[in-house]
Amino acid sequence: MSVVVVRSVGGGKICGGVGLVVERSVDVRLKTDIMCELVEDIQLKTKEFLHPNPASRAKMSAVKGIGKLSGQAKASTYPQPEGVLGEALTSYGKRLDELGQDNLYATSLVEMGESMKQIADIKYNLDDNMKMNFLEPLHTLATKDIKEVQHHRKKLQGRRLDFDCKKRKKDKGGSHVTDEEIKMAEDKFAESLHLAQMGMHNLLENDVEQISQLATFSENLLDYHRQCTEILEVLAGTIHDKKNEAASRPRNDFVPKTLSELGVTDTLNGGLPSTNVTASFTDSSIAAQILCL
Amino acid sequence: MSVVVVRSVGGGKICGGVGLVVERSVDVRLKTDIMCELVEDIQLKTKEFLHPNPASRAKMSAVKGIGKLSGQAKASTYPQPEGVLGEALTSYGKRLDELGQDNLYATSLVEMGESMKQIADIKYNLDDNMKMNFLEPLHTLATKDIKEVQHHRKKLQGRRLDFDCKKRKKDKGGSHVTDEEIKMAEDKFAESLHLAQMGMHNLLENDVEQISQLATFSENLLDYHRQCTEILEVLAGTIHDKKNEAASRPRNDFVPKTLSELGVTDTLNGGLPSTNVTASFTDSSIAAQILCL
Repeated sequence: MSVVVVRSVGGGKICGGVGLVVERSVDVRLKTDIMCELVEDIQLKTKEFLHPNPASRAKMSAVKGIGKLSGQAKASTYPQPEGVLGEALTSYGKRLDELGQDNLYATSLVEMGESMKQIADIKYNLDDNMKMNFLEPLHTLATKDIKEVQHHRKKLQGRRLDFDCKKRKKDKGGSHVTDEEIKMAEDKFAESLHLAQMGMHNLLENDVEQISQLATFSENLLDYHRQCTEILEVLAGTIHDKKNEAASRPRNDFVPKTLSELGVTDTLNGGLPSTNVTASFTDSSIAAQILCL
Repeated sequence: MSVVVVRSVGGGKICGGVGLVVERSVDVRLKTDIMCELVEDIQLKTKEFLHPNPASRAKMSAVKGIGKLSGQAKASTYPQPEGVLGEALTSYGKRLDELGQDNLYATSLVEMGESMKQIADIKYNLDDNMKMNFLEPLHTLATKDIKEVQHHRKKLQGRRLDFDCKKRKKDKGGSHVTDEEIKMAEDKFAESLHLAQMGMHNLLENDVEQISQLATFSENLLDYHRQCTEILEVLAGTIHDKKNEAASRPRNDFVPKTLSELGVTDTLNGGLPSTNVTASFTDSSIAAQILCL
């Protein structure tokens, strides 16, 4: 019996016409293996890319699971860090602004906070688009097509073993195995071989669809960055103007109040217009509390 | 003694000329409080925005701490999820591409992976810029200016209590407190009042600098999104072309190999050119292993 050297991954010897068949078969098998791994791994890493905080991700899917059980459709939302930062900026800006005096820093904080919240909203849109147009097709591929192919490959293995076993028994002269039984085992083996090959072929042949998914990914991400760019162009302009306005404002010389001006020390009774009001400050605690503590 | 109603946050009654002084003082105090809170909180939330994975963030600062102790300057890098996804895409693409046959899906994966890795690099630049131009000025503000203001405010409280105490003792007729001591306590009280007021004023007066930091934040983020947009415009075009190329390729009808073609069943000895080679396949295991398992 001559020995056929089966090509290992990355090259090796192969002989003659049957070599080509073997080589192509090995490629198909390896490609299918890579596809199976790829589809799982890319789904995972895309989710990590969209939702980088593992704790929030876990919480989100837990809430989703409970929602499913209790029949609620509403999914929980991932707390986008852009939104969290935006909320904080807006909130501090508003608190400072409420204290009046046309505070340009306060309004800048609010402007920036609102922009960050808009960016968070756009990111939620990106999430939805990625989920619908990229992750779900991959999920379907994994749970339908790939699962089916793997099922046929597994079945093929079982049927091959069954056929080999029966054939060996017969060759040894075992009387229990009839030609009919061998024929049936061979037919089943052939059927699985056919299905496994067709499945792998269809999986690998579907490159237009698979490239389309990558195109969708890149277009969705492009849209996201384009919209962020637009928002930030406006924001950068607004804050630039506010900075110039703040810089052009006249600065008044600041003269800190003295204790006597605040009526804390009535011995001096400095610059206050009414002795009546001044009298109310004879205890330093009120003034001090107002001022700094 | 008439009662002065101190304005609470968000409005309230206030009386007369001294009222304005009080109101402004309360504003300064509240603004300073908000600024202190803001500077800490915005630093934190900006870090969370730049590095959303708390585990990686913790690891990064731990490694940084060790680096500092051992005198190494090199900081560890945050694993950007864009880069992780990019590495995976490139790796799967290359593995598929190595199996040959001008695989357009494989080259699309590599293109997309490389773009995602570029985006990760741009994000590292954003990190560096944000750190240098936004986080570090805030950190300096918190650890220098704000710390100093808070120190003066705390000292003022102590000196006010000391002054009050000495004055009360003297009013009660305690002989231990001299006029000289009261004068000294008052001077110290006055000094701290001056420093606390000046500190708060300088902190709040520095709005041009603070708005500049916000401007830098928005410009850095704008640059990041602009560069991502440019990369993704190219990528989307490339993948679009690859999709069209894949769609325009002629599809060969696929005829799966039969058992006899693969030489598994030598009883039929189907389409193989050499009986010599065929003989090597009489055991189905080699063929089956090559094919699908």
